[in-house]
This record gives sequence, structure tokens and C-alpha cells, in this order.
Amino acid sequence: MLTPLQTDLASVVEGVNLVWVLTVTFLIFFMHAGFAMLEAGQVRAKNVANQLTKNLLTWSIGVIVFFLLGAAVSSIVAALTSGSALDITGAFMSLYAPDASATTAWVDWLFGAVFAMTAATIVSGAVAGRARLRAYLTYTILIAGVIYPVVVGFTWGGGFLDALGFHDFAGGMIVHGMGGIAGLTAAWIIGPRMDRFKPDGTANVIPGHSITFAVLGTLILAFGWYGFNVGTAAAPLAYADGAVTLGSFAYVGRVALVTTLGMAAGAIGAGGVAMYKTGKVDTLYVANGVLAGLVGITAIADDIVWPGALVVGLLAGAQLPVIFEFVEKRLRIDDVCAVFPVHGSAGVLGALLYPVFAVPLWHDGASFVSLAVPQVIGVGVIAIWTFVATAVVFGGFRALGQVRVSSDHEREGLDTAEHGVDTYPEFGSPDHDTGIRTDGSGVPSGDGFMTTGRED
Amino acid sequence: MLTPLQTDLASVVEGVNLVWVLTVTFLIFFMHAGFAMLEAGQVRAKNVANQLTKNLLTWSIGVIVFFLLGAAVSSIVAALTSGSALDITGAFMSLYAPDASATTAWVDWLFGAVFAMTAATIVSGAVAGRARLRAYLTYTILIAGVIYPVVVGFTWGGGFLDALGFHDFAGGMIVHGMGGIAGLTAAWIIGPRMDRFKPDGTANVIPGHSITFAVLGTLILAFGWYGFNVGTAAAPLAYADGAVTLGSFAYVGRVALVTTLGMAAGAIGAGGVAMYKTGKVDTLYVANGVLAGLVGITAIADDIVWPGALVVGLLAGAQLPVIFEFVEKRLRIDDVCAVFPVHGSAGVLGALLYPVFAVPLWHDGASFVSLAVPQVIGVGVIAIWTFVATAVVFGGFRALGQVRVSSDHEREGLDTAEHGVDTYPEFGSPDHDTGIRTDGSGVPSGDGFMTTGRED
Amino acid sequence: MLTPLQTDLASVVEGVNLVWVLTVTFLIFFMHAGFAMLEAGQVRAKNVANQLTKNLLTWSIGVIVFFLLGAAVSSIVAALTSGSALDITGAFMSLYAPDASATTAWVDWLFGAVFAMTAATIVSGAVAGRARLRAYLTYTILIAGVIYPVVVGFTWGGGFLDALGFHDFAGGMIVHGMGGIAGLTAAWIIGPRMDRFKPDGTANVIPGHSITFAVLGTLILAFGWYGFNVGTAAAPLAYADGAVTLGSFAYVGRVALVTTLGMAAGAIGAGGVAMYKTGKVDTLYVANGVLAGLVGITAIADDIVWPGALVVGLLAGAQLPVIFEFVEKRLRIDDVCAVFPVHGSAGVLGALLYPVFAVPLWHDGASFVSLAVPQVIGVGVIAIWTFVATAVVFGGFRALGQVRVSSDHEREGLDTAEHGVDTYPEFGSPDHDTGIRTDGSGVPSGDGFMTTGRED
Repeated sequence: MLTPLQTDLASVVEGVNLVWVLTVTFLIFFMHAGFAMLEAGQVRAKNVANQLTKNLLTWSIGVIVFFLLGAAVSSIVAALTSGSALDITGAFMSLYAPDASATTAWVDWLFGAVFAMTAATIVSGAVAGRARLRAYLTYTILIAGVIYPVVVGFTWGGGFLDALGFHDFAGGMIVHGMGGIAGLTAAWIIGPRMDRFKPDGTANVIPGHSITFAVLGTLILAFGWYGFNVGTAAAPLAYADGAVTLGSFAYVGRVALVTTLGMAAGAIGAGGVAMYKTGKVDTLYVANGVLAGLVGITAIADDIVWPGALVVGLLAGAQLPVIFEFVEKRLRIDDVCAVFPVHGSAGVLGALLYPVFAVPLWHDGASFVSLAVPQVIGVGVIAIWTFVATAVVFGGFRALGQVRVSSDHEREGLDTAEHGVDTYPEFGSPDHDTGIRTDGSGVPSGDGFMTTGRED
Repeated sequence: MLTPLQTDLASVVEGVNLVWVLTVTFLIFFMHAGFAMLEAGQVRAKNVANQLTKNLLTWSIGVIVFFLLGAAVSSIVAALTSGSALDITGAFMSLYAPDASATTAWVDWLFGAVFAMTAATIVSGAVAGRARLRAYLTYTILIAGVIYPVVVGFTWGGGFLDALGFHDFAGGMIVHGMGGIAGLTAAWIIGPRMDRFKPDGTANVIPGHSITFAVLGTLILAFGWYGFNVGTAAAPLAYADGAVTLGSFAYVGRVALVTTLGMAAGAIGAGGVAMYKTGKVDTLYVANGVLAGLVGITAIADDIVWPGALVVGLLAGAQLPVIFEFVEKRLRIDDVCAVFPVHGSAGVLGALLYPVFAVPLWHDGASFVSLAVPQVIGVGVIAIWTFVATAVVFGGFRALGQVRVSSDHEREGLDTAEHGVDTYPEFGSPDHDTGIRTDGSGVPSGDGFMTTGRED
Repeated sequence: MLTPLQTDLASVVEGVNLVWVLTVTFLIFFMHAGFAMLEAGQVRAKNVANQLTKNLLTWSIGVIVFFLLGAAVSSIVAALTSGSALDITGAFMSLYAPDASATTAWVDWLFGAVFAMTAATIVSGAVAGRARLRAYLTYTILIAGVIYPVVVGFTWGGGFLDALGFHDFAGGMIVHGMGGIAGLTAAWIIGPRMDRFKPDGTANVIPGHSITFAVLGTLILAFGWYGFNVGTAAAPLAYADGAVTLGSFAYVGRVALVTTLGMAAGAIGAGGVAMYKTGKVDTLYVANGVLAGLVGITAIADDIVWPGALVVGLLAGAQLPVIFEFVEKRLRIDDVCAVFPVHGSAGVLGALLYPVFAVPLWHDGASFVSLAVPQVIGVGVIAIWTFVATAVVFGGFRALGQVRVSSDHEREGLDTAEHGVDTYPEFGSPDHDTGIRTDGSGVPSGDGFMTTGRED
């Protein structure tokens, strides 16, 4: 029985926790602006509006699906795979009609939703420039409603991987790893953009249209990532047995530190390898290295000490150029925005390195094997599930001949062909045959801002 | 009489509330970057710097005027229209020299100021490409100092519309609706850009120069909008009669949820209508649909349940293409950045739909009529006041022949003509006759960065 | 001895303070996106990727150096110059292995780190377009590890300037002033870009490639600056002697207000002087005036009342065009992004105006002289130290012929020459002889995204 003052204190604790969760949720939402800019910058000018449209619709459609279906699927999958009581009605009703006094139910849902949408939006970068919008959006509905929620059900939701001891602090594997694997799978099934590989199988480079937008996106993502990682320390204060404690904030300083060092070391790792191989510091390797470093540290940010963060960041960055070339030259998959090396392999790497770097747990007597086995199983299960589910969806569309736009539309560019717009009408129009912008006339043409539905 | 511990608790409550209000105020301020990018992307390359300058000066001049005059005008108008005691000196002095211990007075002012500046900056998007800077800035001073503050005085400030029961949670009508109506009025009086309509009255499309910047602006605005709506739950904690309660946070989860769903449904509504009419998903309709959905939900986000938010968002999005075409084809008004369909009609729609969707109030026994009448009166009063005040200001400038730049300057572009700069000197220079960028020489020309005041 | 409830309250206070410090730290981190865009927009298209790379690496390398070395250097310098006990091991160990319960140690470090990186990144804007990457990064290591930490050791860290009474609230001089002076020194030693000055010594204007990116950067910086200034009220709540007080939040309303007014007045001051001299409102003067106003108010935001903020903002803005021209025409230094007038002279101005505008202190009986003398000494010491240290580093590189790229590389552009990338491959390629973009072919060329390390 709480005294009146203890009751007051509990309300203050709830208020502080709400302020924090909402603030970091907004930051994570803002990562969509980061993804939009990062991806837009790395595609051809003729495909920018298509990429931006996919980003906007991934969020818009995905978040509704995740509300109506995905969150409940997580609960149900968790119950099914953990042997706990199955309550299908309750899984839906907890969101549809939460107890009136439980204002936190929807706040917690939104916090989960911004993670889910991050996983979903990663895929769009891999399939840029040739995926049909209908196929992509169908996949968006499925990843938001089922594919990602199943992974959460296995893990954070309390399913069998959680019971096994699988550890992923803020989604290095669950969010980024699965997103990167899904993207690679989709890009593999859809096939490369035309002219991406020469007849002899060697690669052509198709540079993105604006490094400036790509770097802007990188920095917006890094900003939002502080919400992602540090915000996962989601309840700054805890109140139990009539006593307040610092809750997850007891380790938040360490999370903020290792996130910072992992990000920084990632840029150095990626840039350094590029420098070593060619003598030049490729801007996009440095930028994507920032992101790979962040992905690498995300699964383990709560249990790693700072020297480990530097090592993990360096490794996550250094693997980026290596894996990017492997995907391109060996697998011959056209992963346009490098989402696999940035999110996929870096996420797997971080999750698998957990037993090596979980220093505080060693002190508690945890053995390497007891930490490693759940990680290997967890990474394997998530990777296989993501690969199979993604392959089935895109494979189905491919079997129907609906997975990519016509080669005419691809050559012309998806912006005019699929969306009826020209992203940059004054900076040279795309040649409808080559897709390359060759003149700068930009004469108002009936295409452009809000031209759909016109009769004149 | 509070005990020492209760006094301590009251200080903590005040601290938490300050942390929250400041955080969301910063987010709302950041919406100016969103407006700047959204508008810049939707104007011609030759008018980008002009648009950006207007955005910077709207904030810079407007916020000073709102401090010196606008906030006091709100208080005075509220007193005058509610019959409460008029204290003109006090209206000014509460900001000029608040009680030393009242640190919250200025924080609350800043929270109000970022809303005021949002209303003011919306107008610039409607009059892009031809408004004279002096006329625009004079209007900025008046909207910041009088026109918007009068609306606040009628409503949130405690004036007669507030007494009637007019409900607008976070400014769907008070901020966005009035801004959109002001923009339409100004665009109507100034007249269309040259070549916007053919001699036979049908419309020419003049596409904006960068969809990428427009979408970036959209996502920045959506990010800031969480501050706008969720932040309006401005006092997470309340302390009264010696007891702490969750204050406005009791419903903050619902506000966060319906804001998210309204935004998402808005994109689907606008994109869906465009798709239905033309078979193509116009990127700018989707982006502006995000914003229309947000505007639509803003007035009613505290009293709507989630199925209603989906409906309101869909409607607010779906009306966007319809109203945009009506304004263009029937009214023949050149609303460059579509501020009326996005902010104006969506804001009116949301405010008028309040009685339909105020589900929690129905349970409390409120009748539809008792909810609807104040909304109709409130929307009407705000619309008429905004229309008349705006028409008087811009009509006055038009009568003096000072409302728009010369046709030579308009053709050349406002950037070189009015600001002495070229936004993109290396990506083709604007032809001074046609205003179209035709070559890419970009030879340093004496125009550009900080060239004013030069003698050599 | 605290009662259980007092202990609980102390935990809540710590939680609120952590939430606030983390939130504002993220905002200040985001300023790097602002600097990246501001600087990218103000350089030639052929040098954009170089500028972005420098920004990314300044953060990535700098923050690691500041962790490993810089923070400890501050402590050591503070001890050495204040006569307090020197504890070199402790200076390092407080970060390397803080007490396990002290979660705030790393949070406080990160809060300091984002300030340090702001100072470091300012320099890159001054030396754009010709500095060799190796020289620049060496300087980055030194400013992050030694040069800036020494300044902090003298001042905030508790060294002799602090003991003298030198006042700099949030780094107007310590961060921005020193960054601006460092930039000017570096630009002077490196020499101007080719063709920046004519043979007769008069200036050529080399306009930046995108005003849109520059204004975006400005608004991101203004957003982050609220974290910078208001966030420096770093502990909203204080708990001492068993009683909670509003800590630094007792004056946070004033800080938020004067930051807003200073920013706004800065834009008006700079734009107004430009208008007065040429009749045109130069967009970049207005944008940089926002920043100069913010710099000017930063040192004194805690002790100035609002009319003073308007005056300081106007002065800080108005000096911008004047000092920019002085640096260009008299000193003939090529400060590409105007970092000296924006950060350097505005920072000096604000710090020196402190005794004039520290109104609250006058009421406490402080004399003008007692306030002025420490400011003059502090500004002088910081300026001299920064100048000498920067001159030694860049002078050393110049003596070795390593301070700037070859004239061939400078003409070609640093992006292709030093980074192997073309920022905008589809919007005209830079002529490798003149560095001017003359065609729009954008044929995939093997340069561009992630091309390093390729063999085919």
C-alpha cells in the first residue's frame, strides 16, 4: 500500500518515462527522413521520386498495418513459441481498446512501430530502380504485418529465442540485420538493373545522383540512432516495492558512449579499408561506414565496454567494402544502396560478436559458450525466416512476371514512367531512351507538381 | 500548506514540465526548416533563394513582432471579447518584465510563438514567384502582430469563441486553417504567375525544381508535428491540492496514435485519389497528403479514437487533389505550394468533423448539435477575419501597384532580380529572358555568395 | 541522512536531469548535419564531397581523440593553471573506468564532446577547396586532443581564466570564437583558392553551388543551437541539503527567449546592412546573420535581458558583412564559408559585450570594470593560444609543402582528385581543366558510389 506521497512519486516517475519514450520515438521516426535522403542520393536522378514515394508509402501503409495486425502477430507468435497462454482476442484488443487509464499502451506501441518501419524501409534501398511499386508495397504490407512481427515474437516479444537467451539490445539483428537480409534477398530475386553488369559478368558502376543528399541522410540517421540505442533504455526510472531506482538509466551513459564510439570507428574502418585499397577516401564509404558502425554496436550496446566498441565499430566498418564487393562481384547482386553490407552483415556481425564483448556478463560468471550458442541460433533463425519469407513473396511476383517494371520504363526512369513526375525538371531532362539527362531546357511540360488527374 | 516533501515534489513536477515543453518547442521550431525545404522544392530554380529568404525573415521578423506586440494583442482581444477585466499594461508587462521567479512565462511564450510563426510562414508558399518582398514582409509583421493574435485571442486566449465552446486541440484551424485561408486570399489578390494560365483560361503546369527537397521538407514537418500535436499535451504532470496527476499526459498516448494514423491515412487518401484518376502515384500528392492528414487530425487529436483518425486522415488526404484542382481550374488562383488544400481546407475539414468524431465526449452525454454549432461559428469567424484582414493588406498594396514584382523581374527570376544571387550557379544559369536555365557554364560572375556591398 | 522518500526523490531528480542532458546532447550532435549542409552549399560542386568527407571525419576521428585524450587534457590543464592538485592518472581514469554507479560521467563527457566537435568542424569551412586532407585531419586530431581542451581547461574546466572571473555561458568564445579564429588562421596560412583574387589583388567571387543546402544547414544549426544554449542549463533540477530546487532551470526561460531574439535580430542586422549597401537582401547574408546572432548571444545568454539580446543580435548580424569584406578586401584571406565573421568576430563581440549587458549582475552590485577585465583577458588569451597553435600546425605543413593540394587537383576539384567521386554525376561533369561543369552527360564512368577498391 503506497502512501499519498509515494503515489505522487509514482505519477512523476510515469511522467518522466513518458517524456523520454516520446522524445526518442520522435527521433527514431525522423530516421525516415534519413533513409529517404540516403537512398534518394544513391539512385539515378530518373528514379529519385520513385524512391521517395516508396519511403513515404512504406511508413504510411506500414504503420497502419503494424497497428491493425503486426503488433498482435508479435504477441501471438510469442505465445505460440513460448508455450504461454494464447489470447488472440487480447492480442488485438490491447491496442484496439486498451484500458482507459493505460495511456502508455499506445506510446509503447508507437515506440515499437518506429522500429518496425525502420526494418521495412531498409528493403527499398536494395531494390531501387527496377522494382514494380505494387510488388514492393505488397511486400511492405507483409513485412509490417507478419514478417517482422514474427521476428519480434520470437525475440523481444518473449518467444523461444528470448527463452533461449538470444540477446539483441536495440535491434542490430532484429531490425537492421533482418532488413538487410530481406533487401539482399529481394535484390537477388528481382535481378540487377539493366547495364549494371556487363555481358562478361563484370560490374558497371551506376553512381547515385547526389552525394550531398546521401550524406545528409547519413547524419539524420545518426541523429535518430541516438534515439534508437539510447532510447531503448526506455524507462529511465523504475518504481517498485515503494522505491524509485534509475531503471534502465543505470547504464545509459555507457550506451551513449559506445554508440558514439562505434559510429566513429565505423567511419574510420570503412574509409580506412577504401584508402588502403585505392589510396582515396571514398565519401560514400565513410558515410555508410558511420551507419555500419552504428548497426554493429546496436545489438550489444548495453553490455559492451568502450574498447570493445572501438573494435566492433572498426570491424563493422571494415567489412563494408569487403562485403559490398563480394555481393557485387561474386554474388552479382545489385544491392543499390548497399543495404546488405550496411545493415545485414554488420547486424549479423554485431550479434555474433556479443559473446566476445559482453564483458560485464563475464564478470558475473557467464561462459562464452552459454552466451554464444543463443546468438548463433538466433541469427540463424532470423536469417532463414527472413530469407524464406522474402523469397516467397518476391518469387511469387517474379513467377507472375510482376516483380519489375518493363525495360522501357526502367530505361526511361521510374519517375516519369510510374509516377508521372520529373524530380528535377530544370536540371536536364532524362533522355527517354537512355535515361540520362542530356539537356537543361526544363520547359514546363505538363509533368511535375500535382499533375495527375489533369485533363488540359 | 505543503510539507517540505510536497514542495520538493512540486519543483520536480515543474522541472519535468519544463523539459517537455522546451523539447517540443524545439521540434516545432524545426518545422521552419521543413517549410523552407517544402516550399523551395516546389518553386522554380530561379525563385528558390527568394523563397528561402522569405522563410528566414518570416521567422526573424515575425518572432520579434510577436514578442513585442502579438502576445499582448492576444490577451487584450481575449479580454475584450470575453468581458473579463482589461489590463493593457499587464498584457505587455507579463512578457516584458515577468515576475523574476516565473521562469515559465517566457517558455510558454516561446511555445506560443512557434505556433504563431507556423501560421505566418504558410502564406509564403502561396504567393511564391511574384510577391514583392516589401508587401510580403509587411503582411508578416501584421499577421505576427495582429491577425493571428486576434484569432488566438478569440479562442485559446479565452475569448468569445472559447466561451462558446469552440474546440481546436493543437491548431488545425487556428494555425493551419487560418494560414491556408490567408495564403489563398493573398494568392488571389496578387494574381497568378505569368504563363500559369493560358489565354483561354486553362492551366499550365509550372513544376517545382526539386521533389527531393519537397519530400525532405515533408518529413521534417512530420517530425516537428509530433511536437505540435503531442507537445500540446503541454503539462505532462499536474500538481494540485497536494497531489500529483498525469495532467495532459493522461491522453497523450491517444494523441500520438491518432496523429500517426491520420498522417498515414492522409498519404494514402491523396495518393489513392491521384492513382484512381490517372493510374499514377504522384509523389507530391503523397507527400502533401501526409501533411493534409496531419492538418486534418490536429484540431481533434485529443477527442478522437483511432478508427476516426483513419477516416479523417483519408478524407483530409482525398480532398487534396479535388480542392487543388478546384482552386486551379475553377477559381484560377495560383496557389503555388498548394497551401490551401493542404492547410486551409484540411484544417476546416478537421474542425468541422469534430462533432462527428468526438467519441469520448458522446459518452459523457454531449449532443452533436452542442458540439457542432461552436465549430461552425468558430470556423466561420476565423475564416472571415483571416480573409478580410489579408485582403485588406494585400489589396492595399495592389492598389498602390506594390504587390508584385515587375514582369521583367518575374521572368528573370526573383533570385537575381531581388536578391542578387543565383541559387545554383553551376547547374545552368537562368535565361534572363525566359527564366529557364539553359546552360551549365556557371562561370563565376560576381553574383552569388555574399556579393552585396561590393565595389569591385 | 536522507529519508527513503528523499532518496527516491533524489533518484527522480537524477533521472530528469539525464533525460534533459541526453536530449540536448542529441540536438547539438545534429548540428554536424547543419555544418555539413551549410558548408557543402557554400563550396563549388567539384568540392562538395571533399567538404562532406571532412565533416564526417572531423566527427569520427575527433570524438575518439577527445575521448582518449582531450577530456583528460582539459582536467590536467585546469589543474596546472589553477594550482589545484594534479592527478594525471585520475584525469584519464575518470572516463576510462568511472565508478560503476556513476552513469552520468559518460553522459557528461558526451555533452562536452559535442561542444568540442563543434569547435573543430568550424575550421573546415574556412579552408574549403584547397586544403590537403592529411593536413586537415592532423589538425583535427590536435584541436580535439589538445588545442580546444586547453581552452576548456583554462575556463570551464576551472583553470586560471575561470578563477579570474571570465564568463562564457555556452561557448560563444570558447567554442565559436576559437573555431572562427582557428579557421581564419588556417585560411591565411594555406592561402586563397586559385582565381579567388585577381592579379591586382581585388577579389573574384566564387559562389557556392547551392543556396538551398546552405539555408537548410542554417536552420538545422539553429534547431541544434537551442540544445546548445538552453541545454547548457544542464541540470534542470538540483537536490541539496534534502531540498529540491529548479537548478539551472530557474533562468532557462530567459535563455530560451534571448537565444530566439538574438538569432532573429542577427538575421535582420546582416540582411539590413546588405540591403543598405546594395539595395538587395542577399539570402546568404540573412542566413549567416541568423548564425552570427546566435554566436553573439551564446556567451552571455544567462545574464542578459531581452532588450540587450535584440541589440547584441543586431550588432552581431551587422558586423558580418563589414568583417567579411574586411577579411576579403583588406586581409585578402579566402575564408570560404565566412567562418570568421560568423563564428570568430561574433563570438569575440558577444564575450566583450558581456559587461555591458550583464544587467542582472549590475543589480547585484557588480562593477563594469570587474566584469570587463576578465572578459578582455579571456578573449585575448583564447585568441592568442588558438592563433599560435593553429599557425604552428598549418605553418608546419606549409613548410613541408603539404598544406594544400596540387594546383592540378585544385582545378580539377577535390572530389575526383582526392576522393575518386563525383558528387553530381548527372548534372554536368566538372571539366578537368577548368573545374567548371560544362556538360550533362553523366555517363557511368567508374567513378561514383563505392568505386574504390575496384579492379574492373
